[in-house]
Amino acid sequence: MTRRVFRLLALVAACAALSAAPMKSAQPPRQPRPPNFIVILADDQGYGDLGSYGHPTLRTPNLDRMAAEGQRWTSFYAAYLCTPSRAQLLTGRLAVRTGLSSGVLFPDSTGGLQPGELTIAEVLKTRGYRTASVGKWHLGVLPEYLPTNQGFDSYFGIPYSNDMDRDEELPAAESFHRYMEPRLEFFRVPLMRDKEVVERPAEQTSITRRYTDESIAFIKANRDRPFFLYLAHNMPHMPLFRSKDFENRSRRGRYGDVIEEIDANVGRIVDALRDFGIEQNTLVLYTSDNGPWAPYLEQAGSAGLLRGAKSTTWEGGMRVPAIFWWPGRIKSGTVSGIGSELDLLQTFAALAGAEAPRDRVLDGYDLSQTLLGGAASPRDRLFYYGSSGLAAVRHRAYKAHFLIPPPGNELGASRPSEGAPQLYDLDQDPSEKFDLAARHPGIVGELRRMADDHQKTIVAVKDQIATRTGTAGRAR
Amino acid sequence: MTRRVFRLLALVAACAALSAAPMKSAQPPRQPRPPNFIVILADDQGYGDLGSYGHPTLRTPNLDRMAAEGQRWTSFYAAYLCTPSRAQLLTGRLAVRTGLSSGVLFPDSTGGLQPGELTIAEVLKTRGYRTASVGKWHLGVLPEYLPTNQGFDSYFGIPYSNDMDRDEELPAAESFHRYMEPRLEFFRVPLMRDKEVVERPAEQTSITRRYTDESIAFIKANRDRPFFLYLAHNMPHMPLFRSKDFENRSRRGRYGDVIEEIDANVGRIVDALRDFGIEQNTLVLYTSDNGPWAPYLEQAGSAGLLRGAKSTTWEGGMRVPAIFWWPGRIKSGTVSGIGSELDLLQTFAALAGAEAPRDRVLDGYDLSQTLLGGAASPRDRLFYYGSSGLAAVRHRAYKAHFLIPPPGNELGASRPSEGAPQLYDLDQDPSEKFDLAARHPGIVGELRRMADDHQKTIVAVKDQIATRTGTAGRAR
Repeated sequence: MTRRVFRLLALVAACAALSAAPMKSAQPPRQPRPPNFIVILADDQGYGDLGSYGHPTLRTPNLDRMAAEGQRWTSFYAAYLCTPSRAQLLTGRLAVRTGLSSGVLFPDSTGGLQPGELTIAEVLKTRGYRTASVGKWHLGVLPEYLPTNQGFDSYFGIPYSNDMDRDEELPAAESFHRYMEPRLEFFRVPLMRDKEVVERPAEQTSITRRYTDESIAFIKANRDRPFFLYLAHNMPHMPLFRSKDFENRSRRGRYGDVIEEIDANVGRIVDALRDFGIEQNTLVLYTSDNGPWAPYLEQAGSAGLLRGAKSTTWEGGMRVPAIFWWPGRIKSGTVSGIGSELDLLQTFAALAGAEAPRDRVLDGYDLSQTLLGGAASPRDRLFYYGSSGLAAVRHRAYKAHFLIPPPGNELGASRPSEGAPQLYDLDQDPSEKFDLAARHPGIVGELRRMADDHQKTIVAVKDQIATRTGTAGRAR
Repeated sequence: MTRRVFRLLALVAACAALSAAPMKSAQPPRQPRPPNFIVILADDQGYGDLGSYGHPTLRTPNLDRMAAEGQRWTSFYAAYLCTPSRAQLLTGRLAVRTGLSSGVLFPDSTGGLQPGELTIAEVLKTRGYRTASVGKWHLGVLPEYLPTNQGFDSYFGIPYSNDMDRDEELPAAESFHRYMEPRLEFFRVPLMRDKEVVERPAEQTSITRRYTDESIAFIKANRDRPFFLYLAHNMPHMPLFRSKDFENRSRRGRYGDVIEEIDANVGRIVDALRDFGIEQNTLVLYTSDNGPWAPYLEQAGSAGLLRGAKSTTWEGGMRVPAIFWWPGRIKSGTVSGIGSELDLLQTFAALAGAEAPRDRVLDGYDLSQTLLGGAASPRDRLFYYGSSGLAAVRHRAYKAHFLIPPPGNELGASRPSEGAPQLYDLDQDPSEKFDLAARHPGIVGELRRMADDHQKTIVAVKDQIATRTGTAGRAR
């Protein structure tokens, strides 16, 4: 069956599904089933932290095999920090539109992803999908912000970063030491099922495996119906925990142990899909939420050849690994066109024959023709938001920085500064070494206009990050 | 047939061959034919300059396929500059032992690789191999130093770097400009066949293709007998030339055009091997002679996540891509153990059933068990020589710098300085960011002793680099 016919059928089915209730009985007998979607999101894994992205000692055979069989994207973007990234991924909207752009939420934050926002889970619900959120949430801990209020049938995970709820009074050196040689009790984070805390502190050495167990149970229970699984690992965010089986196993040290445990658990999910015979009907994406958290020395990841790290708008802060896998459907290869987590909602909607919301601004593109047919990516631009707002704009190869990130990756030095714009050709100079602004003032001007036009589309909303009760930690 | 039996037979055959003349008739009828060897050496290509080594926009589909089918080594080393690297590759001896360590040869140099040195070509000659040197030589231009005096049946190439024989009187800015926007006549380098100059200046836009044509003709002529082809491209050394077909084809700019033309021409060689039905009897290695030549901005390559560049003893100066390909024989995978161009002579000798020289110090290891059986690499150490002599030592994961390279990559800033030793764990910290010397003084001491013991094996020889007539250029 050609792709065009498939999509036509999917659209017809979508209309039929929308006009009938209950949904299950509305599906015509020989209609192609909408695909399953699995998004596996790592936390703070850098662009260079996979064998297939060039790391010399990290072993990621499962992900590398998926990269070889599927599509490996080399210009795929997240946001600069955890919370904005997750908001963007789930809503297809820049975090600045949802008030989640200026930093990250904390255990005592009173803000979150507003219930009126529509997530991928809610969009797929219109097509009868079962949905599960497993792992880190970080979009609000008040009951109205939790996953089960955002289109997910269930939630199991640590609702924010695995280093939160820690003792704020520690001197910096002691705090640093606790990150580098962590014990479970240093970080009193809760593990939740739906809206209940079921464990505290979360037993983090088994957390990667347990998230995977939960995911496989969900896949098994829903193997006969379309599903969306959002599996957001808390690792490899600091502090790094891994199970006994992976202790001191990696040549890349503790960080490598953690990545290799994630890789092995990704392999378990792929095996489960094959065991249930649904791998040809399941699109899996593996990606990360931002660049490596550089201050933690060798326990931080690597952005590879990219400049900068998490919390900056250098490429190393926002460009992440992205492997799309769907045997028999995705055209294998490396894609160097631009993509973003912002594109997932529209892409999944198109593939599922669901409608993306029309009553609000979306910032994504439908990448399905690139995934299935190898077409050029429809995305030709990217807006880089940092802690001080719009900091840089990319159009095709050119990226202009209007707020200049600090050159180094020091903790606390992430505030950008104003100054002369800098211009880089990312195709030729992915490491952002050679500022071309003086040579190409016209291009800087075009990118400035593009930034101005974009900013006209931004409507001021309440900053969800700003309000905290003052009773909990400040880690990211 | 098991590997052990094969090697035993090869040894028996070697003895038989050595004791009989002419060689061809000495081979028993059902003896396995010794394998062909092809070494393809790029010039100044960095560790990060292949898709399979993590570059986001460079397209190297032929090399990436070879990497997937064969072995991709991630800790494989050349020397810090062209001339020492080529001396080491061909002799299996550190360049300091052949007087070719302190820099590079120039068109007016009176030194070279001494005729008494034994090259891979000479070693394989004892087993009846046909041998060809195609491309850059850079081991001396006086007749006694040319390839046909070093075991090669033929030579076709530019005998030194493609930027030599240039006008020395130019102001620096003009010289730089000539490198960045080159014309053929700026660089009056000769193209030689055996000992004769056949073209001057060499028509460099077609040089990558013509080297490949010559190589394929050699392969075709020798498809029924064992051969050794040493194909050393002059590209991507500055100035960058490519043919019309590759102009402006790469998203990585002029440098990308050049790499992609090399990749396509590697594909032509692989196709020829398949066409002649000898791919299962041919080991191909693709590697580079040192890291990228950083001063030439976006026209220089990338060392990926590694620190430093050509002419330094940082990893980025000496660690290079290395892809071993031999369908049906090499165990596919990524090898993170240590390897070096120094190991090729002994490895090829073992695979061919030839004797490596016993009357001199060799610095290599036989990697054949790693290539064929996936055994751990036998090499656990590396001695890093720079322009001022032994600068650093690696033992397993640890590398100590005793002469500290300059932090940047500026032209002319390549002289290292004495100072407190620095220690890095390359497995955990391949980017050499976190100096562990203060934490592990015992390991620094062990590496210092290893350096001292090694230096006792070095016998002073005449510096072949030092003597020049003063009549030609000074480029590297």
